[in-house]
Amino acid sequence: MTYDANNVFAKILRNELPAYVIDEDEHTLSFMDLMPLQPGHCLVICKEPAIDLLSISAIALARVHQQSQRVARAADRAFNPDGVTIAQLTRSGAGQSVFHFHVHVVPTWGGLLDFRGHARVRETEEALSESAQRLRDALRD
Amino acid sequence: MTYDANNVFAKILRNELPAYVIDEDEHTLSFMDLMPLQPGHCLVICKEPAIDLLSISAIALARVHQQSQRVARAADRAFNPDGVTIAQLTRSGAGQSVFHFHVHVVPTWGGLLDFRGHARVRETEEALSESAQRLRDALRD
Repeated sequence: MTYDANNVFAKILRNELPAYVIDEDEHTLSFMDLMPLQPGHCLVICKEPAIDLLSISAIALARVHQQSQRVARAADRAFNPDGVTIAQLTRSGAGQSVFHFHVHVVPTWGGLLDFRGHARVRETEEALSESAQRLRDALRD
Repeated sequence: MTYDANNVFAKILRNELPAYVIDEDEHTLSFMDLMPLQPGHCLVICKEPAIDLLSISAIALARVHQQSQRVARAADRAFNPDGVTIAQLTRSGAGQSVFHFHVHVVPTWGGLLDFRGHARVRETEEALSESAQRLRDALRD
């Protein structure tokens, strides 16, 4: 499989598609998942054109997870969840649907998640906008 | 919450409890999950005494995920799964049951996982031993 430069996240990185961006640095972009498993569910992606865990560079992998930690801490402050779940799905056989490396950061209530519930229902613009603002504020704390 | 030096993974690190170890380096230890979600499910832990994602150091976090990538690539060669799922559960409210930072590396068949199925049934010693050997062999490839 070769990297498809027209995948949805590549377009977000080029500002060709909108996103509820909560943070950006030289190597990563963080934004809301439009079909969250739980409120506040967001994604951290690398800027390098990597498909998945098997192909991403070791340095980009480290940077995405270090940014995921920052976002997880912000989500913990912003939403006061019972816990936080980190997930990375590699290949469609594990549920990957956008073929640009991304890490799910999911504020979690009620214990272990059933990822089969992911990407079923699109969240309202109002809720996404509010969650994004709470995360942006918490990232500045 | 303070780190409990008598948690199960701390005891494994001190060789006070056995484990199906597949790899070890200066900063991480990798071994089989005794109650796998899918065959070949293993764990990568840091050697530093960190509880979870919120408290682990940035450098240890990077090292665990870089080792998880090595293990994921080995699992892909060893088991030829449909995909690979990475998960990290922080706090009991997200399903964490051992309070030493660990990353799940799960060879995955059949799409998105239901983590609620985790830690229900203990795998046989024979199956764990065989999976561990396949991963050790693949890590050498």
